[in-house]
Amino acid sequence: MKRPITLEDLDLPTGKKARLYRLLYKYGPGNGKLLVLPIDQGLEHGPRDFFVNPDSLNPEFQLRLALEGGFSAIAFQVGLAEKYLRTFAGKVPLILKINGKTEVPPDDEAFSPCNAAVEDAVRLGADAVGYTSYIGSPRQDDDFTQFGKVRRDAERFGIPVIMWAYPRGKYIEQKGGRDSLYAVDYAARIAQELGADVVKVNFPKVDEEKRALYPKPYNELKLSAREMVEKMVASAGRTLVLISGGAKKNDEELFEEVRTCLEAGVTGFIFGRNMWQRRFGEALEVAARITKMMHEIGRPATEKVAAPVR
Amino acid sequence: MKRPITLEDLDLPTGKKARLYRLLYKYGPGNGKLLVLPIDQGLEHGPRDFFVNPDSLNPEFQLRLALEGGFSAIAFQVGLAEKYLRTFAGKVPLILKINGKTEVPPDDEAFSPCNAAVEDAVRLGADAVGYTSYIGSPRQDDDFTQFGKVRRDAERFGIPVIMWAYPRGKYIEQKGGRDSLYAVDYAARIAQELGADVVKVNFPKVDEEKRALYPKPYNELKLSAREMVEKMVASAGRTLVLISGGAKKNDEELFEEVRTCLEAGVTGFIFGRNMWQRRFGEALEVAARITKMMHEIGRPATEKVAAPVR
Amino acid sequence: MKRPITLEDLDLPTGKKARLYRLLYKYGPGNGKLLVLPIDQGLEHGPRDFFVNPDSLNPEFQLRLALEGGFSAIAFQVGLAEKYLRTFAGKVPLILKINGKTEVPPDDEAFSPCNAAVEDAVRLGADAVGYTSYIGSPRQDDDFTQFGKVRRDAERFGIPVIMWAYPRGKYIEQKGGRDSLYAVDYAARIAQELGADVVKVNFPKVDEEKRALYPKPYNELKLSAREMVEKMVASAGRTLVLISGGAKKNDEELFEEVRTCLEAGVTGFIFGRNMWQRRFGEALEVAARITKMMHEIGRPATEKVAAPVR
Amino acid sequence: MKRPITLEDLDLPTGKKARLYRLLYKYGPGNGKLLVLPIDQGLEHGPRDFFVNPDSLNPEFQLRLALEGGFSAIAFQVGLAEKYLRTFAGKVPLILKINGKTEVPPDDEAFSPCNAAVEDAVRLGADAVGYTSYIGSPRQDDDFTQFGKVRRDAERFGIPVIMWAYPRGKYIEQKGGRDSLYAVDYAARIAQELGADVVKVNFPKVDEEKRALYPKPYNELKLSAREMVEKMVASAGRTLVLISGGAKKNDEELFEEVRTCLEAGVTGFIFGRNMWQRRFGEALEVAARITKMMHEIGRPATEKVAAPVR
Amino acid sequence: MKRPITLEDLDLPTGKKARLYRLLYKYGPGNGKLLVLPIDQGLEHGPRDFFVNPDSLNPEFQLRLALEGGFSAIAFQVGLAEKYLRTFAGKVPLILKINGKTEVPPDDEAFSPCNAAVEDAVRLGADAVGYTSYIGSPRQDDDFTQFGKVRRDAERFGIPVIMWAYPRGKYIEQKGGRDSLYAVDYAARIAQELGADVVKVNFPKVDEEKRALYPKPYNELKLSAREMVEKMVASAGRTLVLISGGAKKNDEELFEEVRTCLEAGVTGFIFGRNMWQRRFGEALEVAARITKMMHEIGRPATEKVAAPVR
Repeated sequence: MKRPITLEDLDLPTGKKARLYRLLYKYGPGNGKLLVLPIDQGLEHGPRDFFVNPDSLNPEFQLRLALEGGFSAIAFQVGLAEKYLRTFAGKVPLILKINGKTEVPPDDEAFSPCNAAVEDAVRLGADAVGYTSYIGSPRQDDDFTQFGKVRRDAERFGIPVIMWAYPRGKYIEQKGGRDSLYAVDYAARIAQELGADVVKVNFPKVDEEKRALYPKPYNELKLSAREMVEKMVASAGRTLVLISGGAKKNDEELFEEVRTCLEAGVTGFIFGRNMWQRRFGEALEVAARITKMMHEIGRPATEKVAAPVR
Repeated sequence: MKRPITLEDLDLPTGKKARLYRLLYKYGPGNGKLLVLPIDQGLEHGPRDFFVNPDSLNPEFQLRLALEGGFSAIAFQVGLAEKYLRTFAGKVPLILKINGKTEVPPDDEAFSPCNAAVEDAVRLGADAVGYTSYIGSPRQDDDFTQFGKVRRDAERFGIPVIMWAYPRGKYIEQKGGRDSLYAVDYAARIAQELGADVVKVNFPKVDEEKRALYPKPYNELKLSAREMVEKMVASAGRTLVLISGGAKKNDEELFEEVRTCLEAGVTGFIFGRNMWQRRFGEALEVAARITKMMHEIGRPATEKVAAPVR
Repeated sequence: MKRPITLEDLDLPTGKKARLYRLLYKYGPGNGKLLVLPIDQGLEHGPRDFFVNPDSLNPEFQLRLALEGGFSAIAFQVGLAEKYLRTFAGKVPLILKINGKTEVPPDDEAFSPCNAAVEDAVRLGADAVGYTSYIGSPRQDDDFTQFGKVRRDAERFGIPVIMWAYPRGKYIEQKGGRDSLYAVDYAARIAQELGADVVKVNFPKVDEEKRALYPKPYNELKLSAREMVEKMVASAGRTLVLISGGAKKNDEELFEEVRTCLEAGVTGFIFGRNMWQRRFGEALEVAARITKMMHEIGRPATEKVAAPVR
Repeated sequence: MKRPITLEDLDLPTGKKARLYRLLYKYGPGNGKLLVLPIDQGLEHGPRDFFVNPDSLNPEFQLRLALEGGFSAIAFQVGLAEKYLRTFAGKVPLILKINGKTEVPPDDEAFSPCNAAVEDAVRLGADAVGYTSYIGSPRQDDDFTQFGKVRRDAERFGIPVIMWAYPRGKYIEQKGGRDSLYAVDYAARIAQELGADVVKVNFPKVDEEKRALYPKPYNELKLSAREMVEKMVASAGRTLVLISGGAKKNDEELFEEVRTCLEAGVTGFIFGRNMWQRRFGEALEVAARITKMMHEIGRPATEKVAAPVR
Repeated sequence: MKRPITLEDLDLPTGKKARLYRLLYKYGPGNGKLLVLPIDQGLEHGPRDFFVNPDSLNPEFQLRLALEGGFSAIAFQVGLAEKYLRTFAGKVPLILKINGKTEVPPDDEAFSPCNAAVEDAVRLGADAVGYTSYIGSPRQDDDFTQFGKVRRDAERFGIPVIMWAYPRGKYIEQKGGRDSLYAVDYAARIAQELGADVVKVNFPKVDEEKRALYPKPYNELKLSAREMVEKMVASAGRTLVLISGGAKKNDEELFEEVRTCLEAGVTGFIFGRNMWQRRFGEALEVAARITKMMHEIGRPATEKVAAPVR
């Protein structure tokens, strides 16, 4: 098993390093791993995601879950951050998600416009900004230009950028779909190329019916799940990798993915619906079990300490 | 009946709170409810809306109606505010509507561009800005970006933002239309996610012919009108909810909607054509009756007073 | 008795008028008069002003007094406004005092630097800004330049400017001192010349020992107190006049000054130490008595109502 | 003993609260108290302060002391922060001191110019900015203006401001000197009036030879050390109070001052020379003893937790 | 002998490191040492400095000397850079000196205003900017504020800043003069505190007649020249130290100073008049001899090469 990449391996400027250190070592699992609770589905999908657990409609549910469940941070759009975070300020770190869209128009030409700025994240005391890039979308020109500005602002303010790197749009469908290794591996590399500090990608899937569509040589690869994630982590290089959960799964599947990812060297997870579409107590149990796995699987990222003063 | 949300429940900064307090307690019904008179139909629909009541063509008609009818505020585009408000300055609070469009192009790709800035609202002494967001429109990218700037300016100047959250565009039609619960519930949540302080939504309607188009699980919901409004109020969370009147209705229908909404916990109404498409005296009577209902229905939002000094 | 000047006599743009209307008619005495409670002495004199009434050290004392005593507004420096006002936002209007100084250096070359901007006042929802101008100070060049910027910002944002017009500095002492009619009459006119909307001046005093120092023809004037105030009100022209209280006086003197000023046509008073250097109940009584005098003395400024709509 | 003021008592916006929470509860003593290690004496006094302990010349000495001694934060000028902090980023919180001066010119007209901006603090991931205000200096006009800009930038970026409030200059000497209760009490109030979030003041001293110079009524006050500190804490109001150590003292005097201050309700201490003018091991012992006193003396500031979710 | 500090010991961002690497390893002595030829005396002293060697009046003389003499860089004011550098562009690296003054007014209140900006340096392809700070001058407020802007611009553009740190002004004279160890040691530390990447200081001198004026404990120090320079290098910390030559010296004295400084760990020299007040050939010889000493004395700073990839 390879040594997972750690904060010390990255060559971050002071501000980005300070903020990422807090997320990796002062909150959440605390051993260099990240467990993030996102709650931006109200914008991306509408309130219908909250029907299975009506308590989850109130963002205080997720804030309390993040606090009591030992999450590293919560990911909010700006409106929720401004209306709900103050009571939890400093207790639950914030990742401000600065772009987003509704599900109403189709994804053929997906683009996620910024409704908030990096400066909003600074003002709200966030430790990172989150940005969705629809990899391979026909609108990648608007996206790359927009991301370039976000990256520069983030550098100016010393705040890490987490890219939600989502292959999307009519052309990626023609090449085997959004979850193929081709797609997510490409997404991981793009995050690194464009300057994200952390990348959030989906767990790669092989769909044998679409294999013929995969560009060479992905169409011929026969890799285990763990090997696929390792490949993706390698493509991300000095960009830390988080795996997203997507729609709610059954528990066995979820924990198996977590195990695979940790063994493959990922830095952590962003699990939303797999968390807050459960009752509070059950969600706490799942969070605790994942945190335990984070401590047990893979060599924990050691926190380097400078040599002692005599 | 749930306790309606009050100003004290919101976590507003001082300036926004001061301005919203004035609208909620110093003008209009005065018990934490809002009754707003909008007159931006000249831009949105053209002068034809004034034909049934020629007096209504002169904005002084609406200003006088707002003053004598005990409205909380009038909503104007900037031109009317600059040309007509001065005589009524301080007597009739202003909500400056800063974007708008004509009805000439179709609504398939609706977008409402800003013709005024938040700073115009400050300069004119407005207590809030109004902004139309066409939820789910193919142009949501331009809209979200534009709204983000409005929100930031409003934060900088401490002025509340009221979002006219209108589902619109060809894709919302494919999902059951603009007035479905799916549509308005989503709209209410988006206002909250993007950082509006108050949201104006339409009264939800069920159209059984389009039910099959509603996204899951809305297609299976069987709710009363009041339950639908309650759901929407819950989705709006810490964003106060105003119900719009739309085209003029018969009185029974109007008052029934008012009753339902008040019982469901809304903060108030923005009624335009239902008001000024009547003769002055009749409009005063309708306003008085709604104000009376606002005082009688639902536990009035109490104004918290800090403990007395000994 | 001359008709006192009213809001309708001033030629104010909409935003300034709306804000001043609120101060004059929606809060405080409510008949076009102003009663302002200032609490910036902690900056100007230090905590020693609070010793006679230790409760007054906590700005909540003054906020509660302003609320329960029916004051038109409270005048705060920015720090107090940010830390204490939110609970009272909208209940007690704010006049943000944007400049100030300590008493430590002598007043020979008095200058009051801005520590806050007009934009801070807008952000905090203030209804006016307060600015101290040391009339006749050797540093009047810095003062006039600074005030020019404040005035322009206030015009841009539509917020009224109240000038604390205080004759001060070594040269005014050589011309008979800061409270002579020459000095305060000059101060009132300067407020008008430089564009203040309201001016706060001291009650004029004649010091026979210094009379010879008064510039001609003030050295020969024999006027009653009321005539002196009338003169000053006339010099202020379309700038509303407020009289300051200064150090705490005995009650008879205070009420006599109030009567004189009201008869002379002033718009109101800014009384700080004369209010909050008393116990709470006593201060309420004094405020009530002054409010009563404001309603009884002088023809109350009528609120012009536009002609009715038929 | 009065309940010391806590973070929850302050009415801070989200970003300032998040950052201050981290300093008060996630680092250092961790119970709502602050223990800050400043190392800006190289600028203020030159390298001669390091002669008694040559190791202290290298800022890594102080960084390691802050880390191992359990300090809440280190206070650096920008050059040291940029050159030395990266290795400790996230482990030792930063307070960026943004103004400063040399000791070469005399203090008659003391003024501390900004060599860094609030944005530098944001970029470096600081949790607060430090600013020296020379209270009562003839140059208070430049100081107040400069501070106003710093305060506004800090509000814009949601970062707390700690004011080093130092009475200074020829006129404060004429009123009894920089450490009198008059001087430090005034300083505490000014920090509150001008909008600092935290104030650093000197421990008040009574100099009987200068008592006659103290302005009334300070010249007649007979207060214990603890009563003087209590008075200052009350004057600071909702501004948290830190006590500075000044030149190195003997241990008994130091711990006695710490005890007195904690009993009087201060939030913490900024001790520089009293720490790093000792050998490393000895400094750790002193820090440990003060931390222990912080936990034992005075009711610890409880961290309010919102009600649990059912 | 202590290991001299190297580029790898500094924690520089990429752009600053790339530029400084070029100066330290690709030009000049090439072993991590710097030998800079300054020619800004035409501004600082006027043409009279060129009288002893009329050829030196033409800046091409110095450019050719820099090229043929193997200097690391030439230091120019912007006018010379724009008029003369193009022929030598890329052959002779540029340090753009962006502030300066004439010798006409006395130095009591010395201040060196910027006549060029960091952006000029970028435009001209400079590898560093030079900035004079008059340490301890009564005008240190203007200087620190100005330098803060230069530092920020240099960070933004990734270009190193070399501070000419010169103690100057009436108050430093009262403390023993500009060349005392107190003065230059303080200067070295200030460069580090304010964020310079390299500092240029004078060789320290002890003047026994002024020893009594030196602040404690400098007045009691008995150090060799080398010990004094070592102290200064230690105070500069992670700021590289260059020694200036000042007025032309005799060769023995010059080479002795060079030897002492190299043994004490300085990074290099900025010698102007000691170079170009000689005939061309002689200057080449002196430069060659100093370069030779740079290679022989002190352990050369090794250029760390990253470990080979297996």
